[in-house]
Amino acid sequence: MVYRVKCTVSYDGTNFCGWQVQSNQSTVQGKIEEGLKKLHNGVSIKTYGASRTDTGVHAVNQVFHFDTEMGLSEYRWKIAINNFLPNDVFIKNVELVSEEFHSRFNVKKKKYKYLINIGDYDPLLRNRMHHEKRKLDIDVIKSEISSFVGKHNFKSFTGGTVYENYVREIYEASLIQKGEYLEFTFVGSGFLRYMVRTMVGTLLEVGYGRKENIKEIIAKEDRYYAGKSASSHGLYLEKIWY
Amino acid sequence: MVYRVKCTVSYDGTNFCGWQVQSNQSTVQGKIEEGLKKLHNGVSIKTYGASRTDTGVHAVNQVFHFDTEMGLSEYRWKIAINNFLPNDVFIKNVELVSEEFHSRFNVKKKKYKYLINIGDYDPLLRNRMHHEKRKLDIDVIKSEISSFVGKHNFKSFTGGTVYENYVREIYEASLIQKGEYLEFTFVGSGFLRYMVRTMVGTLLEVGYGRKENIKEIIAKEDRYYAGKSASSHGLYLEKIWY
Repeated sequence: MVYRVKCTVSYDGTNFCGWQVQSNQSTVQGKIEEGLKKLHNGVSIKTYGASRTDTGVHAVNQVFHFDTEMGLSEYRWKIAINNFLPNDVFIKNVELVSEEFHSRFNVKKKKYKYLINIGDYDPLLRNRMHHEKRKLDIDVIKSEISSFVGKHNFKSFTGGTVYENYVREIYEASLIQKGEYLEFTFVGSGFLRYMVRTMVGTLLEVGYGRKENIKEIIAKEDRYYAGKSASSHGLYLEKIWY
Repeated sequence: MVYRVKCTVSYDGTNFCGWQVQSNQSTVQGKIEEGLKKLHNGVSIKTYGASRTDTGVHAVNQVFHFDTEMGLSEYRWKIAINNFLPNDVFIKNVELVSEEFHSRFNVKKKKYKYLINIGDYDPLLRNRMHHEKRKLDIDVIKSEISSFVGKHNFKSFTGGTVYENYVREIYEASLIQKGEYLEFTFVGSGFLRYMVRTMVGTLLEVGYGRKENIKEIIAKEDRYYAGKSASSHGLYLEKIWY
């Protein structure tokens, strides 16, 4: 009997070289697979993650699945896996699912948040929010951010990976200011590599007047026209819908 | 000409063995004195801190002062010192003060906060809040916490240091619940070693029914009757009044 186990996991990305297993690097997936191997008495277990978060990026609800012959309850799985994980990674939820479920191929949409501190530098937030010193025109950012909503070719906002198709649909792109903190939210069908950080970085350049028109930058379909990617430690993978 | 410089400093206590200089240990004061020595071309500068925070304890507004022959503006001092500090320590404010000012002897009152996560374990908060798994009766804690207010002998709530006088006055002791987070606030004339953490730890034992009456525990004047000290990483030195 083979069971498919779906896990929802939260992690502090600060001390990891991202999600994906890499030899000689500490990664979240690597830690989880090490834990699962111990739990399975030395038998390697392959995990499939929904998103490949980069170095320093956090997750509130990342999802992965794996197959196993071990027959534990959902409650027991949660305790057993967490028992073998370091304290910056935590399995929040476990579900036994059918073999039709695939954490990556069945994704319907994803939500990312991006946090910025526009106040004084705060050492307690240094790995949790991007710190922006430049004066921003928040209203201009709020008005330009809506240009991301809809189905667009996002080639201007990605790099490092070649895709067959650069079209993605963005359902929500919004900015809320809470005192000295900015909270960006993006919900979309999927996201290209560095896409959220490049959207945010470009919006920041719009906010201090170095760039003007998001629609035009999208239309260029060329990375050259977008702004610098914002730093990884402000980014959170918030939610995945199936 | 000797100048007295008063600094307000914020730090993430996670990677420090507390505030106070110790040989062969990384401390906040140690890092600041190293930075000041570089800034003074190798001349050692002694700093005087308002509070000796313990290992893992954070500060939003710790205060210290030092004397120097360097004549910089407040604005320049802030930039110059921060330039020599690691990114988990940040000087928020600098004031040139008279020689009557002493960061420790002139303290009028201090405010501490203590944060607890009573929800699921959250890896992103592991060094920022105490995590409490046990079911707490918040109303009982809220009613008992007020017993700390007033002038009392706090011998039941300290350890590790012998004092001449264990009497301190507490002006405010309160608990606010924000969803799954508890925020304790204590304002007092001064605090004994481990006092805030022991008050919180005892209140937690009250909250899950292991202890009952704070007034009685105070009256015992004996550490045996209080609860276990709550962990250091939930504690924040918030403010110091002069």
